Amino acid sequence: MASPLRVALIGTGFMGRAHSQAWRTAAPFFDLPLTPVMATVVARDPQRTEEFARTWGWENWSTNWREVVESDDIDAVDIVAPGDVHADIAEAALAAGKHVLCEKPLASSLHDATRMAAAAAAHPELVAACGFSYRRTPALAAARELIAQGRLGEIRHVRAQYLQDWLSDPDAPFTWRLDRAVAGSGALGDIGAHSIDTAQWLTGAAIASVSATVRTFVPTRPDRAEVVGLGGRAADGADRRAVTVDDAAAFTAEFDDGALGVFECTRMALGRRNANRIEINGDRGSIAFDFERMNEFEFYDRDDERGEQGFRRIQATEPEHPYAAAWWPVGHGLGYEHTFTHEVVDLVRAIGGEGTAEPDFAQALQVQHVLDAVERSAADDGRRAAVRGREGRR
Amino acid sequence: MASPLRVALIGTGFMGRAHSQAWRTAAPFFDLPLTPVMATVVARDPQRTEEFARTWGWENWSTNWREVVESDDIDAVDIVAPGDVHADIAEAALAAGKHVLCEKPLASSLHDATRMAAAAAAHPELVAACGFSYRRTPALAAARELIAQGRLGEIRHVRAQYLQDWLSDPDAPFTWRLDRAVAGSGALGDIGAHSIDTAQWLTGAAIASVSATVRTFVPTRPDRAEVVGLGGRAADGADRRAVTVDDAAAFTAEFDDGALGVFECTRMALGRRNANRIEINGDRGSIAFDFERMNEFEFYDRDDERGEQGFRRIQATEPEHPYAAAWWPVGHGLGYEHTFTHEVVDLVRAIGGEGTAEPDFAQALQVQHVLDAVERSAADDGRRAAVRGREGRR
Amino acid sequence: MASPLRVALIGTGFMGRAHSQAWRTAAPFFDLPLTPVMATVVARDPQRTEEFARTWGWENWSTNWREVVESDDIDAVDIVAPGDVHADIAEAALAAGKHVLCEKPLASSLHDATRMAAAAAAHPELVAACGFSYRRTPALAAARELIAQGRLGEIRHVRAQYLQDWLSDPDAPFTWRLDRAVAGSGALGDIGAHSIDTAQWLTGAAIASVSATVRTFVPTRPDRAEVVGLGGRAADGADRRAVTVDDAAAFTAEFDDGALGVFECTRMALGRRNANRIEINGDRGSIAFDFERMNEFEFYDRDDERGEQGFRRIQATEPEHPYAAAWWPVGHGLGYEHTFTHEVVDLVRAIGGEGTAEPDFAQALQVQHVLDAVERSAADDGRRAAVRGREGRR
Amino acid sequence: MASPLRVALIGTGFMGRAHSQAWRTAAPFFDLPLTPVMATVVARDPQRTEEFARTWGWENWSTNWREVVESDDIDAVDIVAPGDVHADIAEAALAAGKHVLCEKPLASSLHDATRMAAAAAAHPELVAACGFSYRRTPALAAARELIAQGRLGEIRHVRAQYLQDWLSDPDAPFTWRLDRAVAGSGALGDIGAHSIDTAQWLTGAAIASVSATVRTFVPTRPDRAEVVGLGGRAADGADRRAVTVDDAAAFTAEFDDGALGVFECTRMALGRRNANRIEINGDRGSIAFDFERMNEFEFYDRDDERGEQGFRRIQATEPEHPYAAAWWPVGHGLGYEHTFTHEVVDLVRAIGGEGTAEPDFAQALQVQHVLDAVERSAADDGRRAAVRGREGRR
Repeated sequence: MASPLRVALIGTGFMGRAHSQAWRTAAPFFDLPLTPVMATVVARDPQRTEEFARTWGWENWSTNWREVVESDDIDAVDIVAPGDVHADIAEAALAAGKHVLCEKPLASSLHDATRMAAAAAAHPELVAACGFSYRRTPALAAARELIAQGRLGEIRHVRAQYLQDWLSDPDAPFTWRLDRAVAGSGALGDIGAHSIDTAQWLTGAAIASVSATVRTFVPTRPDRAEVVGLGGRAADGADRRAVTVDDAAAFTAEFDDGALGVFECTRMALGRRNANRIEINGDRGSIAFDFERMNEFEFYDRDDERGEQGFRRIQATEPEHPYAAAWWPVGHGLGYEHTFTHEVVDLVRAIGGEGTAEPDFAQALQVQHVLDAVERSAADDGRRAAVRGREGRR
Repeated sequence: MASPLRVALIGTGFMGRAHSQAWRTAAPFFDLPLTPVMATVVARDPQRTEEFARTWGWENWSTNWREVVESDDIDAVDIVAPGDVHADIAEAALAAGKHVLCEKPLASSLHDATRMAAAAAAHPELVAACGFSYRRTPALAAARELIAQGRLGEIRHVRAQYLQDWLSDPDAPFTWRLDRAVAGSGALGDIGAHSIDTAQWLTGAAIASVSATVRTFVPTRPDRAEVVGLGGRAADGADRRAVTVDDAAAFTAEFDDGALGVFECTRMALGRRNANRIEINGDRGSIAFDFERMNEFEFYDRDDERGEQGFRRIQATEPEHPYAAAWWPVGHGLGYEHTFTHEVVDLVRAIGGEGTAEPDFAQALQVQHVLDAVERSAADDGRRAAVRGREGRR
Repeated sequence: MASPLRVALIGTGFMGRAHSQAWRTAAPFFDLPLTPVMATVVARDPQRTEEFARTWGWENWSTNWREVVESDDIDAVDIVAPGDVHADIAEAALAAGKHVLCEKPLASSLHDATRMAAAAAAHPELVAACGFSYRRTPALAAARELIAQGRLGEIRHVRAQYLQDWLSDPDAPFTWRLDRAVAGSGALGDIGAHSIDTAQWLTGAAIASVSATVRTFVPTRPDRAEVVGLGGRAADGADRRAVTVDDAAAFTAEFDDGALGVFECTRMALGRRNANRIEINGDRGSIAFDFERMNEFEFYDRDDERGEQGFRRIQATEPEHPYAAAWWPVGHGLGYEHTFTHEVVDLVRAIGGEGTAEPDFAQALQVQHVLDAVERSAADDGRRAAVRGREGRR
Repeated sequence: MASPLRVALIGTGFMGRAHSQAWRTAAPFFDLPLTPVMATVVARDPQRTEEFARTWGWENWSTNWREVVESDDIDAVDIVAPGDVHADIAEAALAAGKHVLCEKPLASSLHDATRMAAAAAAHPELVAACGFSYRRTPALAAARELIAQGRLGEIRHVRAQYLQDWLSDPDAPFTWRLDRAVAGSGALGDIGAHSIDTAQWLTGAAIASVSATVRTFVPTRPDRAEVVGLGGRAADGADRRAVTVDDAAAFTAEFDDGALGVFECTRMALGRRNANRIEINGDRGSIAFDFERMNEFEFYDRDDERGEQGFRRIQATEPEHPYAAAWWPVGHGLGYEHTFTHEVVDLVRAIGGEGTAEPDFAQALQVQHVLDAVERSAADDGRRAAVRGREGRR
């Protein structure tokens, strides 16, 4: 039987649930070189943390993250706390010799992200991965394999949209995701970061420069509210609080292989619940994907006979597709949470010496550099801004 | 804390995995009146059963189902073994005072199904439910709520197709699903039964009579083969064995409320991996669904303004939709296995006195009676056959 | 310059407009061996016929069809009058040595259709074609080419639905299409006939027997009404008149090559405006089509690489697709009326000695025989009825 | 009977065919205050022009446009010649007292477009309209009515893509559309101009500034080639000629009502034949459209009940939809060419005193100003460029 890998989870929000389910589910479905043990969960409120531990099967709980990450009882630390504490926890964990999985974006500031990448670089013996979970969608992973095989040829266009609508209502309440000090940025860092990572990962090319616009449509929102899902409902007569992040961002991007990118992210696209979409056109083929139909993607192959060409709807549920063989028969789709299970699988395998867990902190830092370039360009009237720190991108 | 509900699982195939994951997952995500405990798993092969127990977290394992279902240690029995043993196990379990969840179809013969319904009727104090898991798809459950509210008006058309293609290749191997003695029937009982149950449950009407055709396109298949998913690959030079069930079935149906049904099920619809589809047209509205896009359904409302009418694509991931609030933010879909989690949730709640777990054995027997009528009509050159035993349908 | 082909149109309803536009449009867009001349239009009401002639560019008009079809001035007769007069006109036209195009269904009774086929058989030197216009949809014609090339392999399933909803409202008015004496049958002959013809034409196989159900959901409808489109609005307090045709029909079919067909046609499928759909599954490939998106079809090719298989959405607007090269650049679609232009093109070419204009009357009679078998089976409680007169099918 | 409107067509290319069919088709299908007469067609090559006239039914032909536009025999001039001659012809026609319809973009240079708008302004008694034909797509016109009624609320996002792929092959031949001197710009003016006009027309808001990138992926192309559709095939060993226009352009836009636009146009999006797409999100509703499925659009209404919200697929073929009542029954779609028929209908009605024919030259000039701003911004490293000449936009 495989050796245990004792894990600590830092954070108990929506992502805490998603990661807990992933840790519970990875082992029964996948062959793993180590057996994950859900050792400890950490959050601020003792009562809620205890309850969370009981619900999800964490053996212990704590309110002191530092004690936990430095404990000999822990092999790996999974950080799902808000972005402004990522760096402190990750540094401490790496210093204590723990492997780290950190939710995206890597940090709420470029400064913090740089610290984290440096810490990871100082510990090449440890796995330090950032949780861009959409990479683990079988349909996108299958699309990436096609691209890596050259089936799209030379890439010309990347068209990425991440459209949500949970802030469309001007009276949707203020949450920490709207506070620059905690979240770093708004739609840009929360969902645009996914598009950036996905686009670079799929194409194997890095964004070299951007020309950007950001926008906050609703400048204040009711404070104190009951949170429901990502949003919630404001109390009657609530005071309003200033939104300090973007509601939407849009930018064109030059990739270092010459492709032209067009990116848009927003939480105000009424009717689009979670339309994380990407289309890539090369000179041999194209792919298209929308997370609202996450079990399928489209592929266009120029080499099909003339008169028979068209986008194929491929259900990524075949044994040939990444991750899919571990689950159900063909055509029996997966859900959102499975991407986290796959993330944990990749992490455990990397820790066990099988493959790599990507993006590592250097790659995740590079995504932060793109976010930074977007904000610099937007502040400079859209003038093209070079992405710094591209060395992080392999 | 809720009292424990000690569960035994009988069977370890593909459905054994699905049910195990459901039992593991129900409690963390849903408020339940009882806490499921995964007590024992039963199958024939000791080594594989022990391994299954360890993988999925069953406390014990056994090769003697009778001992287990009669044990004082067990409160509920979950039957996922092949159809020809359902009746013996269910009878024994009910006689021993255990609640029962039985995979569909209820049995591989009408005779067995009748026995089971009688056993359940003799124990009204016990919950005895049949696992038509598609009822627990949030999109279908949401559609049913609309229908129950009268939003479709008087139902006229039911159009149900369940299309798979894993037997399209004439050299796909023989499996137990192709053996009438074990499986009862082919596509008809395996997937057509789902369509029948779904159609009756959605509309609240029962099928009164059918006019049917069945077909076996590939009369023999290679024996001995490596099973992969539902299908597999035959060994070279394998002998061929007679297929004793249908590859496809089609029938028109008269519902007792006057609706006209058209049903088709097949495992030979090349390119359709798991297209479990249903469309219902009433005089006020219509709904349409395809399990290949299980997180959405379409709804047409005659009362929309003229010029604005059209099928709406509704993503059944909102807090308003059945089961959905327990999971993820809007637009973050679920997968196939979640339907089993919901099935377990409904069962545990029913055992705990909250609601009912449907279909019960009487309803499931009525589905068998529809299957029986289909086979009788097909054997009688398509002449309309009345469905017997309709009293089971409430 | 090509010789003229002088045409008479008999009938001025909705189909009269469609055919007039076709006759006006064929020549500029297509190379034709003869130049159609819109010589005369015939209908009952003098004033409206004169106006119709002026609007559409017919040189003359008349209220006496017999005089016209026997006139030396006419080379070809295009019959778009109601079905109960098709036979008399066609017989007279053929006897007078005129080529004939007759709207579908060939006649409103099997008796009439048989007379017409006999008349055509007696004049093999004349072209006598029946206007199953959907054959001239480029997407369907392209699909047929794939099938003829064997790309679908052995055909197993034909799944054809023709769904409309203009009679869904129980107060939609009575029209001649609801009168058995004029229309022959209801949804069955009006739209089901299209599905039958399309299915047989696509597969190259004939329906050997059927097992059928027909249904009239709304037995009476308001008389005297303003007709709008196919339907209209009843006058307040109008008397109701008995509907003597079916609102819907459904049947399974055995094709003479062993394929299993499932057909459904209805005018009560709320929300489906003109969903003329067909899907065909063979053992090598599948195609799917819906006229509501008439410029595209889907094709699944088993020979695509595993993991890359999926239905391709092919826009049938390429030069490689039938009829498409005569029109616009790729991706610039055609509309409903273009199918009639193509019908006229095929007819004129056949008259000019280029190719054939299908279906001829013998083939169209065979469609009537299928309709007849459907009605016989439905009247016999669904018992399988053999299709008579299959010799008409080549 | 209505008075005649004698029309001259200048140009006989692909657009000449489309406009000819429109002039032939408008009168029979629509009630018009004047009766169009196809008087004269003008092009350079005598033989081909004569043949064109005969094919399409133009009474006369000429190679001298000036003579024709100044002739007393002509009431209206329809310009479909390349963009670099638009201004001369339009000025002469207006000076001679003729109404003018001019294909888009208004001119190949801002200078020319300005001249044309001035000429039109000097003749307010004449109708001078620019042919942005996509405005006449019933689905888009229906969407616009919803927006004009406030059904989308305050507009936040405009997302417009016009994707084609006929230049994806690096060996697709050089055509006049790739020559800056003739065409003005590439994808930007050819198809991006449509997106700009559509976006402004739908929203009723004007683009105030843009931040842009343009790109030429294939700098040289084979000269001398057989033209097929928009593209063609190069002769073997053909010399290559420099492409002097953009292959693709992308820009973000600020609308004067605060909406954020993201535009992309390209002829290199492999697999997208004519994907003229637009999506608009407001705070009450959203609409989405793709010309590849031109007979439908999607509408999301925030005021639908919670749990029932979703994009409705509306087929714009109902009598309630613009232009649709003149054609066929519901669900029987139109094609690309119908947009030109509608354009002619609107023009003739405006000339006859019924409504206006938009965009007029002032509005079309403003579109040119947007194109100009895009090119200025792109040349200035993406820095936001204000759109000049916004007074043209009402």
